[in-house]
Amino acid sequence: MTRAPAVRFPSARRAAELKAFLEDPANFDTLAMVFNRSSRFGRLQGVKCAIAGRNLYMRFSCSTGDAMGMNMVSKGVQNVLDYLQADFPDMDVISISGNFCSDKKSAAVNWIDGRGKSVVCEAVIKEEVVKKVLKTNVQALVELNVIKNLAGSAVAGALGGFNAHASNIVAAIFIATGQDPAQNVESSQCITMLEAINDGKDLHISVTMPSIEVGTVGGGTQLASQSACLDLLGVKGANRESPGSNARLLATVVAGAVLAGELSLISAQAAGHLVKSHMKYNRSSKDMSKTLAEETDKPKKC
Amino acid sequence: MTRAPAVRFPSARRAAELKAFLEDPANFDTLAMVFNRSSRFGRLQGVKCAIAGRNLYMRFSCSTGDAMGMNMVSKGVQNVLDYLQADFPDMDVISISGNFCSDKKSAAVNWIDGRGKSVVCEAVIKEEVVKKVLKTNVQALVELNVIKNLAGSAVAGALGGFNAHASNIVAAIFIATGQDPAQNVESSQCITMLEAINDGKDLHISVTMPSIEVGTVGGGTQLASQSACLDLLGVKGANRESPGSNARLLATVVAGAVLAGELSLISAQAAGHLVKSHMKYNRSSKDMSKTLAEETDKPKKC
Amino acid sequence: MTRAPAVRFPSARRAAELKAFLEDPANFDTLAMVFNRSSRFGRLQGVKCAIAGRNLYMRFSCSTGDAMGMNMVSKGVQNVLDYLQADFPDMDVISISGNFCSDKKSAAVNWIDGRGKSVVCEAVIKEEVVKKVLKTNVQALVELNVIKNLAGSAVAGALGGFNAHASNIVAAIFIATGQDPAQNVESSQCITMLEAINDGKDLHISVTMPSIEVGTVGGGTQLASQSACLDLLGVKGANRESPGSNARLLATVVAGAVLAGELSLISAQAAGHLVKSHMKYNRSSKDMSKTLAEETDKPKKC
Amino acid sequence: MTRAPAVRFPSARRAAELKAFLEDPANFDTLAMVFNRSSRFGRLQGVKCAIAGRNLYMRFSCSTGDAMGMNMVSKGVQNVLDYLQADFPDMDVISISGNFCSDKKSAAVNWIDGRGKSVVCEAVIKEEVVKKVLKTNVQALVELNVIKNLAGSAVAGALGGFNAHASNIVAAIFIATGQDPAQNVESSQCITMLEAINDGKDLHISVTMPSIEVGTVGGGTQLASQSACLDLLGVKGANRESPGSNARLLATVVAGAVLAGELSLISAQAAGHLVKSHMKYNRSSKDMSKTLAEETDKPKKC
Repeated sequence: MTRAPAVRFPSARRAAELKAFLEDPANFDTLAMVFNRSSRFGRLQGVKCAIAGRNLYMRFSCSTGDAMGMNMVSKGVQNVLDYLQADFPDMDVISISGNFCSDKKSAAVNWIDGRGKSVVCEAVIKEEVVKKVLKTNVQALVELNVIKNLAGSAVAGALGGFNAHASNIVAAIFIATGQDPAQNVESSQCITMLEAINDGKDLHISVTMPSIEVGTVGGGTQLASQSACLDLLGVKGANRESPGSNARLLATVVAGAVLAGELSLISAQAAGHLVKSHMKYNRSSKDMSKTLAEETDKPKKC
Repeated sequence: MTRAPAVRFPSARRAAELKAFLEDPANFDTLAMVFNRSSRFGRLQGVKCAIAGRNLYMRFSCSTGDAMGMNMVSKGVQNVLDYLQADFPDMDVISISGNFCSDKKSAAVNWIDGRGKSVVCEAVIKEEVVKKVLKTNVQALVELNVIKNLAGSAVAGALGGFNAHASNIVAAIFIATGQDPAQNVESSQCITMLEAINDGKDLHISVTMPSIEVGTVGGGTQLASQSACLDLLGVKGANRESPGSNARLLATVVAGAVLAGELSLISAQAAGHLVKSHMKYNRSSKDMSKTLAEETDKPKKC
Repeated sequence: MTRAPAVRFPSARRAAELKAFLEDPANFDTLAMVFNRSSRFGRLQGVKCAIAGRNLYMRFSCSTGDAMGMNMVSKGVQNVLDYLQADFPDMDVISISGNFCSDKKSAAVNWIDGRGKSVVCEAVIKEEVVKKVLKTNVQALVELNVIKNLAGSAVAGALGGFNAHASNIVAAIFIATGQDPAQNVESSQCITMLEAINDGKDLHISVTMPSIEVGTVGGGTQLASQSACLDLLGVKGANRESPGSNARLLATVVAGAVLAGELSLISAQAAGHLVKSHMKYNRSSKDMSKTLAEETDKPKKC
Repeated sequence: MTRAPAVRFPSARRAAELKAFLEDPANFDTLAMVFNRSSRFGRLQGVKCAIAGRNLYMRFSCSTGDAMGMNMVSKGVQNVLDYLQADFPDMDVISISGNFCSDKKSAAVNWIDGRGKSVVCEAVIKEEVVKKVLKTNVQALVELNVIKNLAGSAVAGALGGFNAHASNIVAAIFIATGQDPAQNVESSQCITMLEAINDGKDLHISVTMPSIEVGTVGGGTQLASQSACLDLLGVKGANRESPGSNARLLATVVAGAVLAGELSLISAQAAGHLVKSHMKYNRSSKDMSKTLAEETDKPKKC
């Protein structure tokens, strides 16, 4: 998990000096000692700095055990800011969060450097399953993914939105398991890849999600229904033997469910496409009415 | 509300021909007639096209009464696709959604052209309120907003994320009123501006949110608790006299609440900043513990 | 060509009123008359507004004959600002350019709405040419394009950079023909698509470039060498019979050259890939030295 | 300088294994030894990986002495790919460049992680200079920068384009000193900050440019005119005593010139703003004609 305070100096030169100090490997052990003292689980992993003139943004990242960890990292960061103030008395702390974190905002820094857990999930779907269950074929799926999820999102100016509907699944699991649903902005960043393998017969599908922010302790995870859901998934509470492994497993559950959701929706759209191509001169509005939900029904979107 | 199918032609030339047809004002009435026939409320407003080679993405936008309107627009789009197939028999419908819509993904097209309702909300906060209630001052607030919400988000590579925590408020209201929480990805796009006015004494604050996707009929709005919340806000169900005005009012409620949330959090961070500057050589860890929540408490994030 | 001044009002409400005025079709003829009076060629095409609180950004777009047109549009915009001041006396003109234009900056608004000329260029490359001339095959080219130009750029957080090296060609032609080389930032925005057609035998390649900013009169086009280059391309000076067609033809020359450049580099990389796969256990550093230029040579980049 | 090849594995699991291998500090010395053997100056600094399913993008960064360094890094990367092939025989090299580099494309990875030289340049402009020379005042400059360069670019969906016209200066110096003008796409990424200091009397201006790609040896630097320009700046050729310091100095020259250009243009726009406010009811088209260049003159853009 990350948190990036913004501080201001009288000059860019001074901001650069703190940046150099923070990124010097020789100082890491000291910083980690200061950072780590307020939590049993929060352990500093690194600091990445960005500058805008005399303003410095310091993105601290730390492991957080089985917690999502925002408070943990905020406390550690406060420790470090207090510590730095002695050596950098001209440092003016503007805000404990300077938006380089970046929490609950769509930002490239999360897409590129990750936040929370970074997960890749993959599956091979055999040719016969594609045909009999998904009612389509590998080539149609691969083409649709390129035209919609890659090129379509590219022309839309997407940032991390190279998928069909990851947000639907992330939002649902987040609410069900007591996560912070406001974080699905970045937690649902996802690139979905579909590739033909085994001489074009079978389908390789994957979802890559760099910023899944989840925990199995703290916050909404303690509510009755949410706690029951975590229990059902086998990830309730803190993992005593291997701290953090419950939260990591939950992140993989999210990614796995997203993969299933992507496969399902993309196949439905591809099948619709094929069906319509085949029926080009033989459509009935009746058939259409079956594939589209009624006006006021809960929509099935993408 | 918008929906953008992706279609493919044998050549880019043919794709450009359909683009020219759709964007010709002379054809709008015909397209609208076809689009509108499946709904009492969905009324075509415009079509915007993007091309990637021989693939065409057509972003249809329509008014949707008091519904969020995804199904409405999807049905209208299907009508148009069926209609176009006759004149463009070489048009291959790849997907009813080609991601230029763009639903539940962070995309510049929503940030620039809007989706759902586009709302600007503003307020003037008097000097004495800033001092007595918010415990800070106008200059500190204005500077913090520039360094955090504008410059900080700029260095983070944000897309529509020029705010402190709009997503918190959007997610909360969406869940409470039966909206689709997966849509807070783009519904929480927001730029927060803080400016000194009246010779620097008072504060002008605004939030600009181009993509708030809400409805007061259909979907989760019919559930008991959610329906009660809508009733409490005075926007339950369809507005008979002025279709769409309930949904529009709900969107302004969202924006107004976001403005309050921005003011609150930014002030807290600015006050923390001032407090710490003042206490630079007189800090106590005890004071710090008051301003930071406990490790496992529900975090107050930004 | 576009230009977007920024103006500020006392309130967002007032900013919205001007926005409504500018976007009302009933007012277009008046605005166009005011805008057009300072140039024989600059003709207003539309106005698109964006708001950030009480600040309004008005993106005027106009045709510009055979000129690139920045001065033309700036003068027209100044005319309109002067005109509006009478009816909106509380309008404070902050800057003739408010960066929503957006000139010489990487911005989604150009990628989505275009600036200058928007061009799509396509070609079909026969199977035998792919094999004999390009020394590779269709499938390898298509896969490389997906992995590099679509997915690779997506993970890099690209904005309009879904190509191999469009900027090389744009910069070269811009310098040779007297264009403004600072504008290649947005003029080189490009999505390159490679698709297998005719049952996978042949290759369909296209480049889509929405923001090529060129002119054949004014600026550097009058210099001797640059003027000679334009003459050589058959697009020198103003086209008397069909104003603007010389500039449009130049834009297509740019796109055509980019297509050739993309095909060349992607093929070279794909061939390298194949060669290396085939030579996996039989490489010689000598062979490598042939494919990579010497340390201080002009690099052939991508 | 960076270069990021794209490789493909049979599975995401295998791609993740290579990622883990490359990012393990225990392997850095070996990788560096392999990378460095083809150049006297190219020294591996780090490897950063991104994944899209089973495709791995490895962004190698290295110091390059006084060269811009694209060939140097490409050769080092080829060395590493050859080396890795033995231990990862199922690695399929798709392309020596996978666009995560990212060369000559607008991409967040350069904006956030830098490419070439990262430079911050600052200056303090005294109150009297702002008034007498720049004909404006500090407050107007600060406000214009917020509304145009920060908020205006934010609403335009800018990526690294938070400036007025950095590209003008970068393109000019690049052409004059034999750099690669196609690289100004990312080399002109810049955030310009203007802040009031000393109780609001004086102006602090800074430009932050993370991706200036320059060299003083190789490529176009050897041409007569370009070589003379480098000589004039005191940065011609390789610096024997301190390799790389000539190129670094050239990068600071670029940033310094950009700062001057930003100050000049922003002041001109702010002064225009003030003048026009003051002359609101007393404008003459004659005055306007002085501030706007003639239709066919070389434009002074922003």
